[in-house]
Amino acid sequence: MILIIKNGADARQYEKLTEWIEELGLKIHLSKGESTTVMGLVGDTSRVDTDVLRSLDIVKDILRVSEPYKKVNRKFRPDDTVIEVAGQRIGGGNFTLIAGPCSVESEKQIIEVAEAVKKAGAHFLRGGAFKPRTSPYSFQGLGADGLKLLIKAKAATGLAVVTEIMDSSQLDLFADVDIIQVGARNMQNFELLKKLGAQAKPVLLKRGFAATIEEWLMSAEYVMSGGNENVILCERGIRTFEPYTRNTLDLSAIPLVKELTHLPVIVDPSHASGLARLVEPMSLASAAAGADGLIIEVHNDPARALCDGAQSITPDKLAALVKKLDVVLGVTDKRRGL
Amino acid sequence: MILIIKNGADARQYEKLTEWIEELGLKIHLSKGESTTVMGLVGDTSRVDTDVLRSLDIVKDILRVSEPYKKVNRKFRPDDTVIEVAGQRIGGGNFTLIAGPCSVESEKQIIEVAEAVKKAGAHFLRGGAFKPRTSPYSFQGLGADGLKLLIKAKAATGLAVVTEIMDSSQLDLFADVDIIQVGARNMQNFELLKKLGAQAKPVLLKRGFAATIEEWLMSAEYVMSGGNENVILCERGIRTFEPYTRNTLDLSAIPLVKELTHLPVIVDPSHASGLARLVEPMSLASAAAGADGLIIEVHNDPARALCDGAQSITPDKLAALVKKLDVVLGVTDKRRGL
Amino acid sequence: MILIIKNGADARQYEKLTEWIEELGLKIHLSKGESTTVMGLVGDTSRVDTDVLRSLDIVKDILRVSEPYKKVNRKFRPDDTVIEVAGQRIGGGNFTLIAGPCSVESEKQIIEVAEAVKKAGAHFLRGGAFKPRTSPYSFQGLGADGLKLLIKAKAATGLAVVTEIMDSSQLDLFADVDIIQVGARNMQNFELLKKLGAQAKPVLLKRGFAATIEEWLMSAEYVMSGGNENVILCERGIRTFEPYTRNTLDLSAIPLVKELTHLPVIVDPSHASGLARLVEPMSLASAAAGADGLIIEVHNDPARALCDGAQSITPDKLAALVKKLDVVLGVTDKRRGL
Amino acid sequence: MILIIKNGADARQYEKLTEWIEELGLKIHLSKGESTTVMGLVGDTSRVDTDVLRSLDIVKDILRVSEPYKKVNRKFRPDDTVIEVAGQRIGGGNFTLIAGPCSVESEKQIIEVAEAVKKAGAHFLRGGAFKPRTSPYSFQGLGADGLKLLIKAKAATGLAVVTEIMDSSQLDLFADVDIIQVGARNMQNFELLKKLGAQAKPVLLKRGFAATIEEWLMSAEYVMSGGNENVILCERGIRTFEPYTRNTLDLSAIPLVKELTHLPVIVDPSHASGLARLVEPMSLASAAAGADGLIIEVHNDPARALCDGAQSITPDKLAALVKKLDVVLGVTDKRRGL
Repeated sequence: MILIIKNGADARQYEKLTEWIEELGLKIHLSKGESTTVMGLVGDTSRVDTDVLRSLDIVKDILRVSEPYKKVNRKFRPDDTVIEVAGQRIGGGNFTLIAGPCSVESEKQIIEVAEAVKKAGAHFLRGGAFKPRTSPYSFQGLGADGLKLLIKAKAATGLAVVTEIMDSSQLDLFADVDIIQVGARNMQNFELLKKLGAQAKPVLLKRGFAATIEEWLMSAEYVMSGGNENVILCERGIRTFEPYTRNTLDLSAIPLVKELTHLPVIVDPSHASGLARLVEPMSLASAAAGADGLIIEVHNDPARALCDGAQSITPDKLAALVKKLDVVLGVTDKRRGL
Repeated sequence: MILIIKNGADARQYEKLTEWIEELGLKIHLSKGESTTVMGLVGDTSRVDTDVLRSLDIVKDILRVSEPYKKVNRKFRPDDTVIEVAGQRIGGGNFTLIAGPCSVESEKQIIEVAEAVKKAGAHFLRGGAFKPRTSPYSFQGLGADGLKLLIKAKAATGLAVVTEIMDSSQLDLFADVDIIQVGARNMQNFELLKKLGAQAKPVLLKRGFAATIEEWLMSAEYVMSGGNENVILCERGIRTFEPYTRNTLDLSAIPLVKELTHLPVIVDPSHASGLARLVEPMSLASAAAGADGLIIEVHNDPARALCDGAQSITPDKLAALVKKLDVVLGVTDKRRGL
Repeated sequence: MILIIKNGADARQYEKLTEWIEELGLKIHLSKGESTTVMGLVGDTSRVDTDVLRSLDIVKDILRVSEPYKKVNRKFRPDDTVIEVAGQRIGGGNFTLIAGPCSVESEKQIIEVAEAVKKAGAHFLRGGAFKPRTSPYSFQGLGADGLKLLIKAKAATGLAVVTEIMDSSQLDLFADVDIIQVGARNMQNFELLKKLGAQAKPVLLKRGFAATIEEWLMSAEYVMSGGNENVILCERGIRTFEPYTRNTLDLSAIPLVKELTHLPVIVDPSHASGLARLVEPMSLASAAAGADGLIIEVHNDPARALCDGAQSITPDKLAALVKKLDVVLGVTDKRRGL
Repeated sequence: MILIIKNGADARQYEKLTEWIEELGLKIHLSKGESTTVMGLVGDTSRVDTDVLRSLDIVKDILRVSEPYKKVNRKFRPDDTVIEVAGQRIGGGNFTLIAGPCSVESEKQIIEVAEAVKKAGAHFLRGGAFKPRTSPYSFQGLGADGLKLLIKAKAATGLAVVTEIMDSSQLDLFADVDIIQVGARNMQNFELLKKLGAQAKPVLLKRGFAATIEEWLMSAEYVMSGGNENVILCERGIRTFEPYTRNTLDLSAIPLVKELTHLPVIVDPSHASGLARLVEPMSLASAAAGADGLIIEVHNDPARALCDGAQSITPDKLAALVKKLDVVLGVTDKRRGL
């Protein structure tokens, strides 16, 4: 880490700064220039809070030489992480398809959709039981009952299950779930991340809609530093000034994040725009950009299931998309798993 | 609520849409134009999820005529909410000053700061016991022990206490706290909001750094709809493209939010920029813009307490600021409480 | 256009509003509700400035029913515009490749690159003569001399030329250029747009890095309303909070803009991220998302030409990319022109 | 300037990088670490294009030690620039008030408004003759005729005139204007900036709505490097995700920019939000934050002049605001000029 120190800086603050740095076990290399001094910090700087340093009057600027994340970092683990769960392999050249309805509604609905997406080529079933809703007056999901219906659909079809947790107190209910999803709004719910790091189930970590790539990776580091190395990252769109789509899908993040980390990175094309007709082009674009998979909303009757079906595609469209995906994957180093 | 329906829209989807609207107990008024049909929804539209409607192929656009929040809405409660807590009144012409260190570090530190900020004019003591940190390797606060030290400082000085909760499981530990703070990263932790709505202590709700004004008010609605009407809103900066400050303080939000809601709105000038030297100008600007108070980081020895003191001002600077604040408040309808 | 009028609104302002609307030749349809009145404006609303209406105290909100652009609008011209220039066809199922160096440096350089990109499959040669640079101390391009070198390269290779104009006073110098590029920073240089609308050469209009899709289309409308219907839109990344890339490529904009307009839409994957290693994945993703072409920086010796070669790829990489593009285009309705 | 070079970097690219740096007349100081090498560039780095360096594969990151602007930099000119124009002094402890209508409409209108704002305390008259409009179908201003009417109002009242230029070809028409305004959309119209730098009239440079502080200062550097040192900066709101206001006024920028530069910095509270009722609170907040002045839209009959009056306040409101401003300025080091 490099600090630019203003010349003529307050001597006492400078002294306290150097003491504090040395207490962190770091060594200091100084290089004095005309108007500024460059201070190099050598050692493990992952515990250094750059916001604190940046706020010091005597510090003009800061540059991290090493990333603040360790276990997530590809530098220390060059090979792709491959997560094995329920007979499927995620990452490492495998392209994974997770599909299912926005919300679990009934046993009939979830089993029908599960069968349909399995037939269309999905590897996992998704479906919301606990739903994060902006309004307290909107339907909040079936909750624990919804989880039970997902497990029934798994029993009926063999498809393993991905679903969202909203609070650490719900963790016991997720015993039979295969992959626990953390939603965008909880990406920095650090207490929840710690608890997920202390258990073994894979975690699908959505990017917060205002999270930088580094913050997203630091949230993955929370889970991994707790001992759970099975983290799947999921890009789902960021908040920008553009009003036309709900969020702006950041596909450049895919190749960049894959440089920085060995973890698998998938894309959610359904939530980013909130428009079913964008699912196909953005799914194909995600695959072309190097994603390790997709999580797609699919409903067996979008017109009927208005309450969550509008950004969903039909199983038929999913099947057609899968064929096109296979073509696009041909120019990448990924292949759709069986 | 008004929907613009595309002409030539799929008849079945249109039929399902009207059924769904009628099931919500709403009436439909139609007005057909050449290329579009305008559909007015009459009744209580607060339960309508506009994202769902917006995602329908047959819907071109949507406009809410009524706000989606009710209890928060000034339209239904024109007078300012005044929150009485520990002998202080927040809102309704009172200008409230909350001050204290970023983190609680020791009994000596917190009592010294409490005494100093009380003398300088603060009405409440703030101090972090549970600290949300981007990195799992950063100091996470003293936790429950920190809460105990805050209560000791309250006993020693009489200053009531504001501190942050990070998870619903911590709620029992907050029995002696006066105001429970919800941080920006948890603004849409809906399970936490529901639990805070089911208890009586006032909630200081920070704006998420990527939250729109409407989303912020909807999060306040979560607390109020649970039965707890004591919510204080706190603007603390939003995320923008500008790299020079950590966040961009959105002071236009102050007069706007005060039009929309009867709840008090305060400003945190310390966290927005992360720069101590901006605290005074932005505090004065907040008061001039019509804020109901400030929450300011103050440390008795910023140079020493590097780990959190850098964006803090000293008690002396706070006292000097208070004098200037009183001048600025003279052109507003607020007065500093005693 | 629909206006939501507050009840109890100032009568004089309301009267002035209705007079003003009627002077614009619009008819008013009123629908009164309990707390608001819905006012529908019928007629040609393209001249209505919604910012003005939005700023009126008596107006609560506004919704456009019709888009403010006319000539650009696909609604009034359902078929794709096909621009024919120098024997090439852009749009309408043709996938167009524009390639060349960031800056024109010398006759040898530009002719070598032109030959190389032609061989790799490019349809047009790009190269900067007038360079928009953030700093007045940076190299500003060869100017008029650079344009002459581009024309020499065109003569030597037969590749038609695309290059950027920075001021309306430069227009005479562009007599032999085939397509005139307007850069992102000039997207709302309305005087320049008017002058380009009054001449016949095709205009490649880059999206401003903070422009909404609607503003971008309105700038195209400036050119078209002047009589020049040959506009090519170019997405090149928008400004967001993410610091890791220079800009965030907004690929969702591709399918959306193609719904809204009949004009061709291409992508510049080189400038968005500023990273050569992202050019291939983002080019493939652009094609998969439905773009009508790409404009790519290519240099014959990136390591040497440091001053602008760093975000460029080599002709060999371009040739390899073209093969992959052909595979991806196979799942779209576009084919690479010959 | 400091570059972080990846170890194991391509030797040829590294060699070319060092050659290129030395050709720029800079010296290199190397410091090798385990996984990276820190390269310090010593000398005048203002001509170095950091985007180019950042895009090199062998460069991991970059940090500027010196700002890229020189003439604008307070480091090299610690005292406030005071601009003397038409008997008024701008900057250096003077608080300047510029007021007038959005657009010039008629001789009667502009003279009446000029008299009214002069009486209310304004030092300069503003008024738009050339209007930048998103739509080609909106009223584009009276143009050269509008400039003549402004000059008549100046003759009638003695108030000097500020008005916007939109293209370098209009410069001759501005001979009698006192301060030439560059609008937000033209902040990076570099050809226009160069021409304004080559003449002597003061330039009021609005911040682009997506411009960083550094880019804004670099645009001021364009004007100053051309020889014109009379630049007034104007904050007018930046583009964010918040839909409730047109733009988000960035008041933290005021104290920050005043640290970085000696140039005066004023605020436009009318355009940022587009709401007349926000003008007073945001004007007071601007003064409290340390602004050197304000540019405010004032109309003598907002209800009548719908086409541009909605974000304007009346002269009476301006006079009332001036009294409050004087109180707030009492806690700053600025005083309203006479």
